[in-house]
Amino acid sequence: MSLNALADALGSSRLVTDPDVMDAYTRDEAHLAVPGLPLAVLVADSTEDVAAALKWATEHKVPVVPRGAGSGLAGGATAIDGCLVVSTAAMRDIVELNPADQLAVVQAGVVNADLDRAAAEHGLMYAPDPSSFQISTIGGNIATNAGGLRCVKYGVTRDSVLGLEVVLADGRILHTGHRTVKGVAGYDLTGLLVGSEGTLGIVTGATVRLRPRPSREPATIVGSFPSLRAAADAVAAVVRAGIGPSLLELIDRATLVAIDEWKRIGLEAGTEAMLIAQADGPDADEAAAAIERLFSEAGADFVALSQDPAESAQLLEIRRLAYPAAERLGQCLVEDVGVPRSRLPEMVESIEEISRRHDVTVMTVAHAGDGNVHPTFVFDRRADGSVPDAVWTAADEVFRRALELGGTLTGEHGVGVLKRRWMALEVGETGLDIHRAVKAAFDPLGLMNPGKGF
Amino acid sequence: MSLNALADALGSSRLVTDPDVMDAYTRDEAHLAVPGLPLAVLVADSTEDVAAALKWATEHKVPVVPRGAGSGLAGGATAIDGCLVVSTAAMRDIVELNPADQLAVVQAGVVNADLDRAAAEHGLMYAPDPSSFQISTIGGNIATNAGGLRCVKYGVTRDSVLGLEVVLADGRILHTGHRTVKGVAGYDLTGLLVGSEGTLGIVTGATVRLRPRPSREPATIVGSFPSLRAAADAVAAVVRAGIGPSLLELIDRATLVAIDEWKRIGLEAGTEAMLIAQADGPDADEAAAAIERLFSEAGADFVALSQDPAESAQLLEIRRLAYPAAERLGQCLVEDVGVPRSRLPEMVESIEEISRRHDVTVMTVAHAGDGNVHPTFVFDRRADGSVPDAVWTAADEVFRRALELGGTLTGEHGVGVLKRRWMALEVGETGLDIHRAVKAAFDPLGLMNPGKGF
Repeated sequence: MSLNALADALGSSRLVTDPDVMDAYTRDEAHLAVPGLPLAVLVADSTEDVAAALKWATEHKVPVVPRGAGSGLAGGATAIDGCLVVSTAAMRDIVELNPADQLAVVQAGVVNADLDRAAAEHGLMYAPDPSSFQISTIGGNIATNAGGLRCVKYGVTRDSVLGLEVVLADGRILHTGHRTVKGVAGYDLTGLLVGSEGTLGIVTGATVRLRPRPSREPATIVGSFPSLRAAADAVAAVVRAGIGPSLLELIDRATLVAIDEWKRIGLEAGTEAMLIAQADGPDADEAAAAIERLFSEAGADFVALSQDPAESAQLLEIRRLAYPAAERLGQCLVEDVGVPRSRLPEMVESIEEISRRHDVTVMTVAHAGDGNVHPTFVFDRRADGSVPDAVWTAADEVFRRALELGGTLTGEHGVGVLKRRWMALEVGETGLDIHRAVKAAFDPLGLMNPGKGF
Repeated sequence: MSLNALADALGSSRLVTDPDVMDAYTRDEAHLAVPGLPLAVLVADSTEDVAAALKWATEHKVPVVPRGAGSGLAGGATAIDGCLVVSTAAMRDIVELNPADQLAVVQAGVVNADLDRAAAEHGLMYAPDPSSFQISTIGGNIATNAGGLRCVKYGVTRDSVLGLEVVLADGRILHTGHRTVKGVAGYDLTGLLVGSEGTLGIVTGATVRLRPRPSREPATIVGSFPSLRAAADAVAAVVRAGIGPSLLELIDRATLVAIDEWKRIGLEAGTEAMLIAQADGPDADEAAAAIERLFSEAGADFVALSQDPAESAQLLEIRRLAYPAAERLGQCLVEDVGVPRSRLPEMVESIEEISRRHDVTVMTVAHAGDGNVHPTFVFDRRADGSVPDAVWTAADEVFRRALELGGTLTGEHGVGVLKRRWMALEVGETGLDIHRAVKAAFDPLGLMNPGKGF
C-alpha cells in the first residue's frame, strides 16, 4: 500500500504509522469493542487534507474510520485491521462566532465546552451538553447526534446544527444546509448526516445554532423517593404538566449507594431513587415551585429547592458521579434505551425485574424528562475483557422491552458496533434495506466506517 | 395500461378516470405550473391501498404524483401526463391522541387545524401552522416541511414529527422513528422524508409531537415604521435580545396599501412597514414590553400593545389578508426566500431595488423572526397564463441575492417544479449528485413525483 503517495498528497497534517502512537487512536470509551490494527492514522489539520486522504483511500480501497475525541460509548470509532483512522480532533478553530445571527462556524475538532464558553462571552450558549462535554468534539457530537442533560429543554445535537461541511468517501467536499433557521431546498442532508456515525462521510466543519443563555442561574430541585416507581410517576407528572424543566434526571438506589460509599452524600435508608430537576427560564421560580409540589404529590419523602449556584452545582455533581461510581465496582456496559415518557415507570420496573431474574447488577440513571434511560450493567472484570452471557441476555431483554414500549435501542449514544445486532428489531428489514441503499448512495465502495451503525 | 388490475387490487379506495373529476386533482396552488393529464386518480382510504397502487405502478412503470389537499405553492403536486395521482386527503383519522406522551398518531389526510383543535381539548397544540392550516393536510405539511407563523418559536414541521409510515415506490411499507423524543438508532430517515416533496415515497401516516398549549392568550404588539429598513432593524434587535416571540411578522407598504384599499384599515401616509409580534409564554408581559421598547428604539412612529384576544385576532387578520389582497391586483408569483436574520434589512432593501429597476410590482411580507421573506410578484394576468420575462428576471435576482446573503431559495414552500432551475446554485453540483443518488436509493425506477424537488 503506497502510504508515501498519501503522505505526498497531504499538507501539514500528521500521518502516524508508529504502532505505539497509533494505539491511542484505535478505540473509544466502549471498552468492550475490540479494535483492529490500522494501516495508519491521519491527524488532520485541514479539510483539504481529509479530502486528499479519502481520495487516496478510495483509489486504494482502504477502509476509513473517522474519530473525534474518542469519547463515544458505542464503539463507533473502533479501528479495524488495515484501516486509515482519520482524526479531526486537531481541527480546533472557531471560524466565526456571530451573535447577531446566533450561530457559529466551527471546525469539527472544536471541543463542546470550548464552544459553549466562547458563546457565553456573548450571552449565548451551545445547548447540547453530553456528559463528555469537557472533552468531546463537535464533530463527534454530530456523528452520534449526541444528547445531554439540557436537551430535555433545548433539543439534541441535530436541533443545533444548521449546516455541515463533509468530506465524502471519494474525497469530494459536500456543503449542506445554510445560515438560516429555516430552509427546505432539497433533501435534509444535514439531518441525514447528523447521527450517521461516520458511515456516510467525515464531518470536517459545521455551522451551529447558538441560543440565548438563560439570564439567571437555574433553580435546582432535588427529591428523594421511597420507590423507583414513585420517582418515575413524578417525572410523568412533570411532563404532563407541561412545565418544561431544563434538566430532569433520575438516579436509582444502586447508583446512590455506590456514590455514597465513595463520597458520603448522606444517603437515607429508605431512599430508592432521587430526582434532580432544574428550571432556567424567566418563569423559573414558578416552574421550580410546581416541580417541588409534583414531587411531593408523587410521594417524595424529601424535597429541597435551591437557588444557590454552588449548591446547585453540588447536586448536579452527584448526577455526574454516577458513571465513575459504577466503574469503581467493576466492568461496565452502559446502556441507553429510550421510551415514551409515560412508559418510564414500566421501563425502570422492567429493568429491576430483569436484573433480579438474571442476578446481574444494574445501576440506572436516566435523562428522565426525555425518557432516556441508562442502565449500567456492572460485572467482574475478566482477563479477556469479555462480557458474561447473563449480561448480554439481560441487556437483550432490556432492549426488547424498550422497543415493546414504543421506544428505541439508543437515545443518544449511537449504535456503533455494540448494538448492531439489534438494529433489525428497531428499524425492520425494509428499514435496513433502505439504510444499505442510502449508505451506498454516499459510499458505493463501502469504505466509510464499515461495520458500524447498522 | 391495465387499470382493471389496479382496481382489482384495491380495497374501498376510489379510482377516478373521468377527466372532469380528475381535473381537480391535477394542480395545486402554484397556478403557474402547467399540469398534464393523469391516467387515473386514486383517492386512497388506506395505507394498504396506497401500497397496492404503488406496487402496480412499479410493475407498469407508471409515474406517481402524490397529493394532500393541493394547497402547495411550488407545484409539488402538479400532475404529469400518464401519471397516477395518489391523494391521501381522504385518510382523515386521528388514530391516537396521547396527552401523557404529548403525541398523536394520524393518517396523512388529517387537516392541520383539525389536529390542533383535537389537541387543544387536552391543553396541547400541534405547533406548525402554515397559512393554509385550515385546509392543508399533515401529509402535505410533512412532504413540504411546512412552516408557519408560530414556527419562529416552536420550529417547523420537521420539529414536530417523531415517526412516519411511508409507502415506498415498490409498494413496501416503511416505518421510521418512534414514540420517544430522542433516538439515534440508524439514519434519520424521518428527517430525510420530511420535506422530500413526494419524491422518495408517499407519507400515509405520522406520529407527531404535541406541545403544551400556552396557558394564556398571547400579548400582541403592532408597530408602524417610516421605512422598511427601520422595521427590519427592529426585527434584528428583537432577535439579538433573545426574547423569543411566538410570532414576528413584517408587512411592507405595498401590501398594506392593497389591504387598506380593500378593507380600510386606516393606513397612515408615512407608514412604510408594519410589524406584528406576539409573546405567549409565562413571561409574555415582560417580553411584550421589551418588544414594544425595541420597536420604538428602532424608529417606530406608532406602537401598540394589546392583551385583548379579539383585538389580537384582528391584527393577525391583517397579516392573513396579505395574499388575497395581492391576488385582487393581478396574477401572483409568491416567493419564499430565507436569509440569516441579521441580513433581513439588506434582503428587503434588495427586493425594493430589484423591483424598481425591473419595474415589477413586488409586495413583501415576511416571517421576519425567521428571516423568511415572501416577496409576491404581481403582474397582469395573461391569456396563456405565462409569466412576463421581467418577473422571472427579477425573481432570479432575488434568489441569487438571498443565496449571497447566506440564505436559501425556499424557507418553507418547497422547490416543487417552480424553483428547480435554481437548485444547483444552492446545493451545488456535488449536492445535486447526492440528491440523485439518495433518490435512486428509495426509488430506483424514478417513478415517485418525477420532475419535482431538484
